[in-house]
Amino acid sequence: MNLKIALAQTQFFVGDIAANVKTIVESARYARDELGADLIVFPELTVTGYPAEDLLLRRDFINLANNAIYEIAEQVADIALVIGYPERDGDKLYNSAAVINQGAIVTNYRKQALPNYGVFDEVRYFTAGDKVCLFEFNGAVIGLTICEDVWREEIVKQNQQGGADLLLTLNASPFHSGKIHLREEIVCSHAKNAQLPIVYVNQVGGQDELIFDGVSFVVNKNGEVVFRAAEFKPQIGVVEFVDCVPQEHSCAPLYQEVSSDYEALVLGVKDYVTKNGFQGAILGLSGGIDSALVLALAVDALGADKVEAVLMPSRYTQDMSVEDAELEAKALGVKYHIIPIEPAVTAFGEMLADIFAGTKKDATEENIQARCRGVILMAMSNKQGKILLTTGNKSEMSVGYATLYGDMAGGFAPIKDVPKLLVYKLAVYRNSLAPIIPERVITRPPSAELAPDQVDQDSLPPYDQLDPILERYVELDQTAEEIIAAGFSPEHVQRAISLVDRNEYKRRQSPPGIKITPRSFGRDRRYPITSGYRGIK
Amino acid sequence: MNLKIALAQTQFFVGDIAANVKTIVESARYARDELGADLIVFPELTVTGYPAEDLLLRRDFINLANNAIYEIAEQVADIALVIGYPERDGDKLYNSAAVINQGAIVTNYRKQALPNYGVFDEVRYFTAGDKVCLFEFNGAVIGLTICEDVWREEIVKQNQQGGADLLLTLNASPFHSGKIHLREEIVCSHAKNAQLPIVYVNQVGGQDELIFDGVSFVVNKNGEVVFRAAEFKPQIGVVEFVDCVPQEHSCAPLYQEVSSDYEALVLGVKDYVTKNGFQGAILGLSGGIDSALVLALAVDALGADKVEAVLMPSRYTQDMSVEDAELEAKALGVKYHIIPIEPAVTAFGEMLADIFAGTKKDATEENIQARCRGVILMAMSNKQGKILLTTGNKSEMSVGYATLYGDMAGGFAPIKDVPKLLVYKLAVYRNSLAPIIPERVITRPPSAELAPDQVDQDSLPPYDQLDPILERYVELDQTAEEIIAAGFSPEHVQRAISLVDRNEYKRRQSPPGIKITPRSFGRDRRYPITSGYRGIK
Repeated sequence: MNLKIALAQTQFFVGDIAANVKTIVESARYARDELGADLIVFPELTVTGYPAEDLLLRRDFINLANNAIYEIAEQVADIALVIGYPERDGDKLYNSAAVINQGAIVTNYRKQALPNYGVFDEVRYFTAGDKVCLFEFNGAVIGLTICEDVWREEIVKQNQQGGADLLLTLNASPFHSGKIHLREEIVCSHAKNAQLPIVYVNQVGGQDELIFDGVSFVVNKNGEVVFRAAEFKPQIGVVEFVDCVPQEHSCAPLYQEVSSDYEALVLGVKDYVTKNGFQGAILGLSGGIDSALVLALAVDALGADKVEAVLMPSRYTQDMSVEDAELEAKALGVKYHIIPIEPAVTAFGEMLADIFAGTKKDATEENIQARCRGVILMAMSNKQGKILLTTGNKSEMSVGYATLYGDMAGGFAPIKDVPKLLVYKLAVYRNSLAPIIPERVITRPPSAELAPDQVDQDSLPPYDQLDPILERYVELDQTAEEIIAAGFSPEHVQRAISLVDRNEYKRRQSPPGIKITPRSFGRDRRYPITSGYRGIK
Repeated sequence: MNLKIALAQTQFFVGDIAANVKTIVESARYARDELGADLIVFPELTVTGYPAEDLLLRRDFINLANNAIYEIAEQVADIALVIGYPERDGDKLYNSAAVINQGAIVTNYRKQALPNYGVFDEVRYFTAGDKVCLFEFNGAVIGLTICEDVWREEIVKQNQQGGADLLLTLNASPFHSGKIHLREEIVCSHAKNAQLPIVYVNQVGGQDELIFDGVSFVVNKNGEVVFRAAEFKPQIGVVEFVDCVPQEHSCAPLYQEVSSDYEALVLGVKDYVTKNGFQGAILGLSGGIDSALVLALAVDALGADKVEAVLMPSRYTQDMSVEDAELEAKALGVKYHIIPIEPAVTAFGEMLADIFAGTKKDATEENIQARCRGVILMAMSNKQGKILLTTGNKSEMSVGYATLYGDMAGGFAPIKDVPKLLVYKLAVYRNSLAPIIPERVITRPPSAELAPDQVDQDSLPPYDQLDPILERYVELDQTAEEIIAAGFSPEHVQRAISLVDRNEYKRRQSPPGIKITPRSFGRDRRYPITSGYRGIK
């Protein structure tokens, strides 16, 4: 038998079932008419988008999602569709895939492996299915799995033992740096061990903190990738099966790691800003590396005409910071304003003079400067309907080296999950495409410029020490003893860990940002604020 | 056989295993020496505190928790202890109870029913146990359950069928308004149906957004409560069993609903502020009802000497607001300051004059005022090490009637889960104890005073309409159609729902607050920010 299977690597909008139905119908017709496909496979929970979170607890939402399957069945003929949806059965909900052919639901599969770790909360919503599901189509026996299922070798094998000729898998697998390699490795190995070709379809697009990177693929029974769709882009691909053997097709190359991270961030900014209906974005440009990178990301995501920068020098801002910030804005062609914060800082100083009389200057006075900038930026954001992008990086978020309601203010924090050392790499990468960030910004020692001659290293271990310590403590759950044993200075380890422990309260009020590491802050790492745990005794 | 069982309704500190071990050992010795108890029952996950969240993913933390059981066994003799802890077995973790007697672990039970809804994420950490656990002690056969287990009638029955004479249950059951009645009703009904006495021990204290209210109790096999410990207070109670029949003891009365809510809020403020090591609290006092209530809560929680109020009038603040705020501060005996915000508002107005030239006044200018107050309050908080208490209520949080980084700024939001109508009831209740809030504050129409002659009802449905609509939409997941069918005006329903849908982004950056309703914002209600779902079409 010959069979053409389309992979619908498409954007779905969480919560907007009507829009998703339209996308499904249009994609199916396109695959049938333009690609000659016999069957089209969609990502996990196609109808609702993924993750729909507690919308899944609303009866009206689930009603709409279940009805949608029938609507789609009525609207498309002459191509079979495999669609993900939250299936209600009595008072239970399943994460299911329906197979629709010629107006009828021919079979239905219920996801067996429900992830409930990291960013996933599927047990909150779903009951696990308990059996494989095979159906015959054009003479082939086809098995179904949904996302986490295909990571479990025993589930792949159950399909093969049940007599499957090939396996389809519907996914909503979020990106982190390097994950695509892990994903292909696992699926190829399971395909080879079970001698079963696998069609892997992933969603694409940004959804709050998550990026779905696409990179759908088909692997043959020898564990070889014979088709790969683009990274970070919608694409309806098609693969021909001859006697259940997938034929060789074009394989999109994978980005290198740093460029892949960069593209993920661009997609994340673009989708957050546009799906939430903002007119554009603004940001504070300090002359430092973080805001330089965020400016580049914003321009690449939205276009220079949608982005506006604000320079807000204080008495501690060096001339070169203003010069460099202007150079960046000009290089990227964005509108910018210069608003010195001195008048507001002075006003607050006078208003607080009586109460603060006799006290020493401390972080309070630094925070006032950062918060004056926050007020200016939020006022411009409010007035113009442009989102304020926050420019803090993961190293700062980890140790709380940022001012709540000051530089932490904003609707979205593009580089919140990017450690400082990677900020530099991404800046160098972006400059390799076109020189937009002055060299000096990359080479000068980083400074918050909130006090005379201040540099980050006054308060923090150097970043080439700090970042690996943070990765070990925050992402890998290593102990202080283990990190010190790996060769890091006890003093740096103690300083870093005690700051991480103490700053959960700040992180809790930070804007959402884009997950690019295996463990980001947010849903991915759920720590109590009130806690007697100390990573350092 | 005669048997004295102690109920250790005690505070445990999440994450501080050493402190919790000390509390366990001291409580056991006290129960043995002062109360003559033969056995003492502790709350769920005693050793780590509850909920320890992702600390449970750290190997070092789990090591400490497992070692703690042996430390305790070594330190206490001549009384049996039933202690909750996260039990590691290979790569699995169980939510377990160990029974320790004379230095040995005599048995171990693994929780079977793992809640993974509402604020609970137990499947994220634990594997479910699959069998009952009975042990003999002083001639009685005793069964064990942990929290959610006892809500499942089949698990209670399994213990009875296995031959239990009585059942112990270790709990960490968070408070919401009226929950105690539900809890006793369920447990009494299960006791009666299984003809099995139940000893129910609950944790007490505030932990981030959750309040554990205590109210441990003992029910006999007829389903009658024969002992009840105090609400919201630590108490080591003891109940005598004669031939496995629990004898009548003193039953603490339950608070009425409004006073119970009030006490929950006081405990929540007290524990958050003290466990996080703050020197005291400050808040902005506007002359309105919300800040009046938060001031009273803060004083009742911390004492007047630990609380400081700041009045920050603007050109739109009416004289009576300042007068009433001063009266409140004086009635409660707290230090207060008056800092007019005009100089900062003027400074920002001038700094933004060029950029805003030709635009109309809108919410931007209102937000600037609120944010100037935020800067002042945070500066005072930073300088003195006092936490800033946020004064917004649940109605405002629901519809986004608040300014991010303005009146939403702060470390803790005591009344974040208190709807406006309940704010009034709580104020009236507090005035019934001693008149501290001027009558006028309760009777005048609420206003944000950010524009001339502004009142809340210019932008929002009246609160007697808004609050029940919000309860139905946010807590009960009702649809707009259902709410309108219940008799609410379509216009009010539409306005309320569209505001709830649009303001998830604000709620995501709000400070933590105290859960007192069946569904609070925070871990309890997980909505996507980017969402095409609209409760109103």
